[in-house]
Amino acid sequence: MSREPFSARLAARGREVGSLLCLGLDPTGCADASEVERFCVAMLEAALPHVVAVKPNLAFFEQHGAAGLAVLERVRHMVPASRLLILDAKRSDIGSTAEAQARALFDVWGADAVTVNPLLGQDAVAPFLARPGTAALILARTSNPGAADFLEAPLQDGRPLYRLIVERALTWSGAAEIGFVVGATAAPVVAEVRCLAPSAPLLLPGIGAQGGDLEAAVSAGLDAAGGGVVVPVSRGITGAADPRAAAADLCRRIEAVRAGAPRR
Amino acid sequence: MSREPFSARLAARGREVGSLLCLGLDPTGCADASEVERFCVAMLEAALPHVVAVKPNLAFFEQHGAAGLAVLERVRHMVPASRLLILDAKRSDIGSTAEAQARALFDVWGADAVTVNPLLGQDAVAPFLARPGTAALILARTSNPGAADFLEAPLQDGRPLYRLIVERALTWSGAAEIGFVVGATAAPVVAEVRCLAPSAPLLLPGIGAQGGDLEAAVSAGLDAAGGGVVVPVSRGITGAADPRAAAADLCRRIEAVRAGAPRR
Repeated sequence: MSREPFSARLAARGREVGSLLCLGLDPTGCADASEVERFCVAMLEAALPHVVAVKPNLAFFEQHGAAGLAVLERVRHMVPASRLLILDAKRSDIGSTAEAQARALFDVWGADAVTVNPLLGQDAVAPFLARPGTAALILARTSNPGAADFLEAPLQDGRPLYRLIVERALTWSGAAEIGFVVGATAAPVVAEVRCLAPSAPLLLPGIGAQGGDLEAAVSAGLDAAGGGVVVPVSRGITGAADPRAAAADLCRRIEAVRAGAPRR
Repeated sequence: MSREPFSARLAARGREVGSLLCLGLDPTGCADASEVERFCVAMLEAALPHVVAVKPNLAFFEQHGAAGLAVLERVRHMVPASRLLILDAKRSDIGSTAEAQARALFDVWGADAVTVNPLLGQDAVAPFLARPGTAALILARTSNPGAADFLEAPLQDGRPLYRLIVERALTWSGAAEIGFVVGATAAPVVAEVRCLAPSAPLLLPGIGAQGGDLEAAVSAGLDAAGGGVVVPVSRGITGAADPRAAAADLCRRIEAVRAGAPRR
């Protein structure tokens, strides 16, 4: 299958929908798999008009066992081709194991992009870079307090680990694109990663419940064309009294930043 | 549920079975989920008499979708209580997401221990430390070439990253035990981790197909009581002409190292 690069698809879909917002599907607190399914159906119906992408986190499906993954397979088919599917699983493993993970995420569950944990190095990430038109979004600096434990640890040359991860990942090659996950809770790091990787797609989690500043993070992350970012929000939409209105408002705020940003 | 600590269970089961060998269930090359199930049934039947633990890697089940995970759920029930179940999934995520991952692995799929990727720091690992009697086996230095990219990167004080991971993880507390995954391909690192963590359970992958030296790795990893290690082998058993004989031979070689090792 020949497909345009992920970034080009993100830009095109973003223009069509008028949004860089991504619905994070994190069904917490559901009693069983069928409740998960009802939750996903309701949230997709509410938010799809205002989002360019949908990002289920596999953990919330896995916690209901195989039945939960069966729901993911049905939910996947509710995401129209006009939206991008980002599967958040933070996988990676050695050799043939990472190949099996990539098959699950891209070939079985149909991801357009996946989040990847780079700790095990290049050969553990390579299988996620094999499919044209997709992207591997590599964890660079996450939005949680524990990011300070290792990702910000200073290396011998003074760089924090996350910077080595970004610089090294940019030398890796594959048919897919490499992007990065950078927590919106640290806008200066978003700006730093954008500087290192001018054209990489950036996923900016941490808006809303985690306290990330939407305007600061998006402004720091936009590429020269005023795009290149995906802003996932889960609880800020799915926990709102009116999820549709919450999504519309978040979308509008992102577009306002884009409208005001200088084109670099 | 009150259970003995993981290490105590490992020691007791190890004595009963007379083995520290672990069957790695990595069903590669199966056409579909039912072939995966036949593979697992056959390998469990062949190897169970000679192993103290069974370690399925979830990737090889996931690549067959929800049907593959349903097989994992059935396979899980074929592992008797006299053997430990180590689920190899290398998970971790932030906050409530890691909690959902831990629920999937321990509560739904019944793991006695799981492998955990520490990159995101303490709060991403904490949910895997909540269950008494279990263990979180933290990736320290893996057996693949990419371990050189980040895990061996020197920090400002000269320590490689894996050493910071081990030292920091040993300060984390929880109801569960903390152990480490150290590739058998680097016996000196196994010895170093054992020195840092005298009583932690160590999982030593990389024997066989990956070229790790069984005798060197086991010798380096044994604790003062001559135990504390789990030696997972997958292809070296499941790819053998006679898997039962291969498991018996590996078990015998590990026991020979233990018999010859000085009690420290």
